[in-house]
Amino acid sequence: MTEIFSRFFSNSSQLMKKSAIREILKLTQRPEMISFAGGLPSPDSFPLDDIKKVTAEILNDDGQAALQYSTTEGDIKLRSLLVERHNREGLHLTTENLIITTGSQQALDLIGKIFINPGDVVFCGLPSYLGGINAFMIYGARMKGIPLDDQGMRPDLLEKSIIKLKNEGNVLKFIYIIPDFQNPAGVTLPLARRQEIIRIAERHDLLIIEDSPYRDVRFEGTPQPLMSALDHSGRVLTLSTFSKILAPGFRLAWVIGHRELIDKIVTAKQSADLCSPAFVQKITAKYIEKGMLDLNLVKTIALYRERRDHMIRCFREYMPEGIKWTEPEGGLFLFVTLPPSMDAAKLLERAIRKNVAFVCGSVFYCNNEGQNTMRMNFSYTGPSDTCEGIRRLAEAIREEMASV
Amino acid sequence: MTEIFSRFFSNSSQLMKKSAIREILKLTQRPEMISFAGGLPSPDSFPLDDIKKVTAEILNDDGQAALQYSTTEGDIKLRSLLVERHNREGLHLTTENLIITTGSQQALDLIGKIFINPGDVVFCGLPSYLGGINAFMIYGARMKGIPLDDQGMRPDLLEKSIIKLKNEGNVLKFIYIIPDFQNPAGVTLPLARRQEIIRIAERHDLLIIEDSPYRDVRFEGTPQPLMSALDHSGRVLTLSTFSKILAPGFRLAWVIGHRELIDKIVTAKQSADLCSPAFVQKITAKYIEKGMLDLNLVKTIALYRERRDHMIRCFREYMPEGIKWTEPEGGLFLFVTLPPSMDAAKLLERAIRKNVAFVCGSVFYCNNEGQNTMRMNFSYTGPSDTCEGIRRLAEAIREEMASV
Repeated sequence: MTEIFSRFFSNSSQLMKKSAIREILKLTQRPEMISFAGGLPSPDSFPLDDIKKVTAEILNDDGQAALQYSTTEGDIKLRSLLVERHNREGLHLTTENLIITTGSQQALDLIGKIFINPGDVVFCGLPSYLGGINAFMIYGARMKGIPLDDQGMRPDLLEKSIIKLKNEGNVLKFIYIIPDFQNPAGVTLPLARRQEIIRIAERHDLLIIEDSPYRDVRFEGTPQPLMSALDHSGRVLTLSTFSKILAPGFRLAWVIGHRELIDKIVTAKQSADLCSPAFVQKITAKYIEKGMLDLNLVKTIALYRERRDHMIRCFREYMPEGIKWTEPEGGLFLFVTLPPSMDAAKLLERAIRKNVAFVCGSVFYCNNEGQNTMRMNFSYTGPSDTCEGIRRLAEAIREEMASV
Repeated sequence: MTEIFSRFFSNSSQLMKKSAIREILKLTQRPEMISFAGGLPSPDSFPLDDIKKVTAEILNDDGQAALQYSTTEGDIKLRSLLVERHNREGLHLTTENLIITTGSQQALDLIGKIFINPGDVVFCGLPSYLGGINAFMIYGARMKGIPLDDQGMRPDLLEKSIIKLKNEGNVLKFIYIIPDFQNPAGVTLPLARRQEIIRIAERHDLLIIEDSPYRDVRFEGTPQPLMSALDHSGRVLTLSTFSKILAPGFRLAWVIGHRELIDKIVTAKQSADLCSPAFVQKITAKYIEKGMLDLNLVKTIALYRERRDHMIRCFREYMPEGIKWTEPEGGLFLFVTLPPSMDAAKLLERAIRKNVAFVCGSVFYCNNEGQNTMRMNFSYTGPSDTCEGIRRLAEAIREEMASV
């Protein structure tokens, strides 16, 4: 499309890129395509009957309020229930420490808006969630990627980078980190590293944005505390969401943190969308109150554990030598490393011709590395399609290996 | 609250003000308070039974898709139905000309984001919707207010101001206008002025943001065409919403315009919240498809006409000499002009002590004028409370007159 209106567009709109993932998702809506590209939960995890019941109740008992504007902070009942949940895991929150957002993506956007001036430095993992990187870059953030190992972000490299950039006179704002089942790398930050990164943030006076969409989807191993629970200086904001544990179609998420920071997010949200939908907030509150969330979570975890195991089995069966993949303790993704010489973008073209799709890992690297990596979602696709999809993908990889 | 994190906040966050209206709304949640401050629809206008029926159907027939992510553009069925509606009133749209947003407030925010660089000039009415002014100012817009008369924005003053600001070397971006039952002034732009303002925008190469939340809530008189329908150069973006004709608790609105502009809004929305809730989009599409929206609109219009008439009767009965008010053909508000020497902010303090509230008109003036004006919502409050509220307000005005 020729741009006939380009003279009107703002500088920040020039920084906006269509999400590579969402664009691939469009390509993959053909029925014959087996797609591992999205981050979609399985529809089998949606508790349709319970939601039917709860929705009818809300419309009967509280319908007028459910159809009215909510407060910007969010439904007080829902906020209270979430505060209780967090306090049971050792936090000390009041409802003033919590705001409901229209998905975690809105939280990322509002955080970009309230903190970032053009040129400010934000630290993130190499790789790291694309939606976070994009949200911050639109506000002019300079993203500085910190390499991960199999225990997540490397504190030593983080601090080295902080010192270097500080000495160069840059303004450093925050560390964006996904401690549990990192998207896309699948790794989980152990307790000691969580504490170490908090100490680094204190030493150098940075905030920490802890993005935690998958935390509750843990298949095995010991849950690690939220970084919010380890911090004593109020410098951690934690983002959580209902998208992976209830229904992304509700667009509900929440942020916890120091009340001054939450208050600033409230003010920014007033201009962004006034409030999140009261209707789904009230449904969700009732759903939690009845204990349904915890019951459904058990089922969802079992389902996704099975799907992770199944995908790993298919990888073992079909993949040629030289392909490596993660085996994460939770979350929705495997991260795959191809031989160093192989370009995942070229592989994707070949794969799409075979009706199988994934996301190139490089889109998660703010420094354009990771050309030989790919992200595979295991939550959405059923077992037989997964099998067939991995078979096709392995075939594409073999052909690509032969053509190099 | 002392700001302990202020060193982290962005420049644009310093421009964020808590909405005066939403802050008053909090004050007025005491049960003894009669508040005319909000812009809330009447809960009596919510079609609870129909929504119950439709929601059950959606959960039965299309539940899995209703709980999944939507596309960023919005539910294709809902978009098609809205395109059809617009095309029946003489527009020529395809679904590529329309995006669903999370309330019109999100549309205002995204428009600010994609068009405004700090210092760019945006024209708006004097007075004009606070949520629009705030959304644009956060991106650094310099708002230039153009006086209204009883037919809305004055084209002669608009063009004079454009020429002056252009000659001074400013970058001019768009005209923000609410042609139908302007919020807060209540005036409607006649056809000739709509055409004239479009010609001015063409001559000086500006975009027009037509904000049209109340258009369908017309009590009498002839509907005027949307400015989108009169424009042939693709420079009008029109914002419409379900908040005043169905349920604000759904947070659903839509924008129509040239596909290049809509496409840019789609890209911006990806970073802002990925998509609006599929659940309420599917409910709303089904609700429209069944013809329920139009039937409910007839009821809503009748209800609000009666409430407008009732409030005007109360004004006539109770108000002292020297108080003027509008009698709008539609919408949700009367705009009241006090004697020039009276300060509505001082009056509000007195009124709140008498348990009655309104919004000071000055918050709608980007140049801080309008100190002696106030906005009164007539849609939310029932007849007997309205009567009592206006009586108290008139009493407060008399006392304020005596104290000056």
